[in-house]
Amino acid sequence: MEEVYIQVVDKVPLRDPILVEGLPGVGNVGKLAADYLKEKIGAKPLATFYAKCFPPQVYVSEEGLIRLVSNDLSYVRSPASGGRDLLILGGDYQGMSPEGQYELTERELDFCHKLGTREVYTLAGFAQGHVVEKPRVLGAATSMKLVEAMKRYGVVFSRNDPGGGLIGASGLFLGLGRLFGMEGVCLMGETSGYFVDPRSAEAILKVLTQVLGLSVDFADLEAKAKEIDRIAQRVHDAVESKPSEGPAPAAPREDLGYIG
Amino acid sequence: MEEVYIQVVDKVPLRDPILVEGLPGVGNVGKLAADYLKEKIGAKPLATFYAKCFPPQVYVSEEGLIRLVSNDLSYVRSPASGGRDLLILGGDYQGMSPEGQYELTERELDFCHKLGTREVYTLAGFAQGHVVEKPRVLGAATSMKLVEAMKRYGVVFSRNDPGGGLIGASGLFLGLGRLFGMEGVCLMGETSGYFVDPRSAEAILKVLTQVLGLSVDFADLEAKAKEIDRIAQRVHDAVESKPSEGPAPAAPREDLGYIG
Amino acid sequence: MEEVYIQVVDKVPLRDPILVEGLPGVGNVGKLAADYLKEKIGAKPLATFYAKCFPPQVYVSEEGLIRLVSNDLSYVRSPASGGRDLLILGGDYQGMSPEGQYELTERELDFCHKLGTREVYTLAGFAQGHVVEKPRVLGAATSMKLVEAMKRYGVVFSRNDPGGGLIGASGLFLGLGRLFGMEGVCLMGETSGYFVDPRSAEAILKVLTQVLGLSVDFADLEAKAKEIDRIAQRVHDAVESKPSEGPAPAAPREDLGYIG
Amino acid sequence: MEEVYIQVVDKVPLRDPILVEGLPGVGNVGKLAADYLKEKIGAKPLATFYAKCFPPQVYVSEEGLIRLVSNDLSYVRSPASGGRDLLILGGDYQGMSPEGQYELTERELDFCHKLGTREVYTLAGFAQGHVVEKPRVLGAATSMKLVEAMKRYGVVFSRNDPGGGLIGASGLFLGLGRLFGMEGVCLMGETSGYFVDPRSAEAILKVLTQVLGLSVDFADLEAKAKEIDRIAQRVHDAVESKPSEGPAPAAPREDLGYIG
Repeated sequence: MEEVYIQVVDKVPLRDPILVEGLPGVGNVGKLAADYLKEKIGAKPLATFYAKCFPPQVYVSEEGLIRLVSNDLSYVRSPASGGRDLLILGGDYQGMSPEGQYELTERELDFCHKLGTREVYTLAGFAQGHVVEKPRVLGAATSMKLVEAMKRYGVVFSRNDPGGGLIGASGLFLGLGRLFGMEGVCLMGETSGYFVDPRSAEAILKVLTQVLGLSVDFADLEAKAKEIDRIAQRVHDAVESKPSEGPAPAAPREDLGYIG
Repeated sequence: MEEVYIQVVDKVPLRDPILVEGLPGVGNVGKLAADYLKEKIGAKPLATFYAKCFPPQVYVSEEGLIRLVSNDLSYVRSPASGGRDLLILGGDYQGMSPEGQYELTERELDFCHKLGTREVYTLAGFAQGHVVEKPRVLGAATSMKLVEAMKRYGVVFSRNDPGGGLIGASGLFLGLGRLFGMEGVCLMGETSGYFVDPRSAEAILKVLTQVLGLSVDFADLEAKAKEIDRIAQRVHDAVESKPSEGPAPAAPREDLGYIG
Repeated sequence: MEEVYIQVVDKVPLRDPILVEGLPGVGNVGKLAADYLKEKIGAKPLATFYAKCFPPQVYVSEEGLIRLVSNDLSYVRSPASGGRDLLILGGDYQGMSPEGQYELTERELDFCHKLGTREVYTLAGFAQGHVVEKPRVLGAATSMKLVEAMKRYGVVFSRNDPGGGLIGASGLFLGLGRLFGMEGVCLMGETSGYFVDPRSAEAILKVLTQVLGLSVDFADLEAKAKEIDRIAQRVHDAVESKPSEGPAPAAPREDLGYIG
Repeated sequence: MEEVYIQVVDKVPLRDPILVEGLPGVGNVGKLAADYLKEKIGAKPLATFYAKCFPPQVYVSEEGLIRLVSNDLSYVRSPASGGRDLLILGGDYQGMSPEGQYELTERELDFCHKLGTREVYTLAGFAQGHVVEKPRVLGAATSMKLVEAMKRYGVVFSRNDPGGGLIGASGLFLGLGRLFGMEGVCLMGETSGYFVDPRSAEAILKVLTQVLGLSVDFADLEAKAKEIDRIAQRVHDAVESKPSEGPAPAAPREDLGYIG
């Protein structure tokens, strides 16, 4: 078996497509944003990526149907004549080993490159370690031209964040993308790092949709954010109401991790 | 050396063979069931799979003969004219790494695919974390048609179990099997997860033999189940008879793990 | 770079050569025996095996010269006309990963197979977990004929030892060797498992030299065994002379591990 | 994707080039020395090595520009007619796995071998576990001729150091280099192992520049060494001024690790 097995679902010619990547990671921000975008603009399946660097796992639906874990590429044709089409890459996992990350990302970029992709936007969360009321969108890019362009959309290029660089798919898609001649931007929504964070996902999607000239309704994402708020508040209240200073409730992160 | 080395033991034309997989796992349920079936219907060796993802280990028999750890494929010709033949895959280990699991499963499926296999039944245990008096058989499948068919044999398709999906060979054989155009079912016997569980193995075998139209005597498996019961009872009594609330006897799981 | 890189040092035609393997392991018994045999019968270098599954390490000699870690194959021509030649495989490490163990062993067997090897003796220690005054030599083999032959040399084929089989090079050389059509025996010297054990090495060498019809002087190995005895005695005395029952001296195993 | 991807930046014919290697390691001594040399002699980029054995990571500059982690080869033409040119290999990481170390080193050596390299100097720190006022330069080499030559530059070839050999790139470049017919020397600057150590880097650079006949100004490296001294002194004072014997300040190693 090859390291990565690509199942092509549809074959369509695409016009200068822009790739948007959002996989699981900090606060699940990138995946939440990519999945939401995919749903709202009605993206259609193009290809599925199975890989040896994923866990040997199938998901089982409520009906009892299995599905092998994967990454998935979807597309949307631009409604405007002459407009650029869109590719969205999401999925269940990033590669579980460094070697797997490189291999998988390279194969996915190669596939998109052959579809004509020259520009990439990667979506991620940036863990601040404390609650973030109004998440800023931090950026990193492959060229000063893109840095300047993103600043006009309110993206913050901070001298110190991210200090040690970016680890994982969102950075690697840009780093390896350059070897394919692609330019790109990583949009990072600030988040605590403790919860799944739809509000942070909304922040980066608001920038991205402006950049791409898309119109998306954020009501469902906001509803999800409020649901997380309520749960977080209940956890907070439970802690506060305790008479003695006991330990914090066990693993709120995990409890909430399954919501959203 | 290739990742997987296949030693073909016998070459026989098979009629539309159905593959049954049962490898070591939770409660050893899948392996117990597959090995028992293999013995009772007199399956003959067809091929041996050696793999780099197994431990570098040989077993030594009581006489002093060594045998390299492996997976093994056996076959039974259908006694009925026009009936479908059977393949049974068992062995000492699943692949020890995620990459190895994928590679080994793919090679085994490829081998069976070339023999004409289009249908797979995978056998596993499902750990409930508590003693299960009458183990139900839970299911997952590749199509709604198979889900409905299995329900008629009493297989339970539960909305919540297995919640996070299936990890390991039993799920992967179905997930990767679909890439070979195979349809299939995973039969999971409920078990505590603490003991080797012949009773759970019996439960899934009773479903499987009905599905396959086989007649198998379960007396030996029931005897083995009763033996485990007696041991579990002795462990239980030893705990109960202790005057003070001491810790449970060390590692009953391991003690019993070698029986069966 | 290939997984294994073979540097051929000498090219000689060999007559039906018997392979003896002794690599680092329990009590260093196998390596001690193989190295001692190599030295005493004046084996000459034939090939060096470098491998990615070794640590990325060089040794530095007292003079300051570096040497990359490796396995090494030596040979001795039989002095008797018509006699069988001998190959000895030793070295610094076994493969450090399961995959590496398989790959390295397969490449080494393949090399020896091409030299005409059909018979293998692997040397190892068998850890008993307690001091062994007179180490027995336990055996495992690829055929009943070899089991019977070894019994005549006093090798013990025990019903329970080794219970879980053999893990590592000594078992794998036999297990994979069978795929090359080789027959073989593993000779395991009983040892405590706590010390480097030249006495156990001597025990298996005494069997092996009889089997091979070689005459070897064991004086140097016995001297080394006595040196270990003295050190072990000193450790023992130090423990006994303590007025209170304190913990045993830290890590006698490691202290002694560097001797020999 | 290949295990190692080489991006050639410049193509120049080189005259009998000598390779100097300095990657991150103990006290960062090797990397500090190689980077300093590269800067001071104005080496120009020749090739970049990306590898799957690196972390899947990009660094982000203060301006917000990303750069994929890599190793980098630079060159300097000899100013003297008939002089030998110089190659300097530095970078962000050594390979993160043993297999990766071997693969990456082999590819880098292969590249340099094709450029005509026959001689290698590897730079490293040697951890003494205590503060070293005047770091000696320890050596290891591939031939007695080089050992003798290095002694004339004050390099110490100690009977006991390094006792267990060298682990990592600096040893591997010599060990694998021999398989390419290269001769070489490892220069190890003594260091405590607790801090980034520019003084140790200076010690090995002073030897190396003499060997290579280069003239380099060490003022900037000395300034950096003094900066580390001041910080170490402050840590030391903080510990001493404590009235009670508390634990040492947390992780001075890490605190200082980011300086330099």
